[in-house]
Amino acid sequence: MTAYDVIRTKRDTRAYAERPIPEETLRRILQAGRMAGSSKNTQPVRFVVLRDQARKQELAACGDFAAHLPAAPVVVAVVLMPDGGAFDAGRAAQNMMVAAWAEGITSCPTSMHRPECAAAALGLPPQHRVAIMLPFGYPADPDPRPPRPGRQRLPLEQYVHEDRWKVRDEVANG
Amino acid sequence: MTAYDVIRTKRDTRAYAERPIPEETLRRILQAGRMAGSSKNTQPVRFVVLRDQARKQELAACGDFAAHLPAAPVVVAVVLMPDGGAFDAGRAAQNMMVAAWAEGITSCPTSMHRPECAAAALGLPPQHRVAIMLPFGYPADPDPRPPRPGRQRLPLEQYVHEDRWKVRDEVANG
Repeated sequence: MTAYDVIRTKRDTRAYAERPIPEETLRRILQAGRMAGSSKNTQPVRFVVLRDQARKQELAACGDFAAHLPAAPVVVAVVLMPDGGAFDAGRAAQNMMVAAWAEGITSCPTSMHRPECAAAALGLPPQHRVAIMLPFGYPADPDPRPPRPGRQRLPLEQYVHEDRWKVRDEVANG
Repeated sequence: MTAYDVIRTKRDTRAYAERPIPEETLRRILQAGRMAGSSKNTQPVRFVVLRDQARKQELAACGDFAAHLPAAPVVVAVVLMPDGGAFDAGRAAQNMMVAAWAEGITSCPTSMHRPECAAAALGLPPQHRVAIMLPFGYPADPDPRPPRPGRQRLPLEQYVHEDRWKVRDEVANG
């Protein structure tokens, strides 16, 4: 697949096969996160790699929609250092998820709704926080979850404005 | 290049050739942004595509380090809708920059330090804000800016913790 096709076909999914992720593949995923640029090259993002089931379960309890975390063979906690911004965390996370998908590994950004719970489970220093949890695994086949009837992607024309914002009727987004 | 090599070799650069970006290439870049996932599929990101020199100059005046914007043949303003988060903007921006680099087009996220200035220049509705400006262009050859003597990337070992955060001596991070 070309990089564009990898990006274009990536979906956030929450069901994983048990098949482990090879260490070399995981290293490429982490390298992809490291190579994301950051504001003024402050490099404010760090990664905590979780494989232990008990630790994954502890973190699953820190989010409202995080019950799928223990099913992933590897979960990466994306940690923001003090003064780090969520935009840079998003860049690093997307790099990791795209690099993973290029090797057939799926993922789904998972929020920690109780950040102090996650910080305690990971033993983070003061002012460090979890930006997102990224479970990684080969897709479950077949996916045990039926497709959701939720919102589809808006068409590109609704994403893009030319030169200046134009007020337009837009499919409800909320 | 594989997707991993595209990700690995991408650098944020601020010097662009005058060569225009083909419309089909630009469309792939914008599609890459659209295809980034978002929190609960809220799709909170929009793109304003700027080609007009006067408009680019107007926006260059809204950031402290944005003087390079008019040199890029295309600048994309990544706009966050009300309640949209910077993490999702980072995902979309990274997708666009990686898709661009796969076609030899460089970019550099550029902050608007005076957000109300940027919102006015773009005519944004209330509560909408510019998350970042993304100038896109083929690299200037040779790059007129000498390499900066600034910070290098920390080694991967300093980015990664296993299982739980470990306090360690780390190269000062600014």
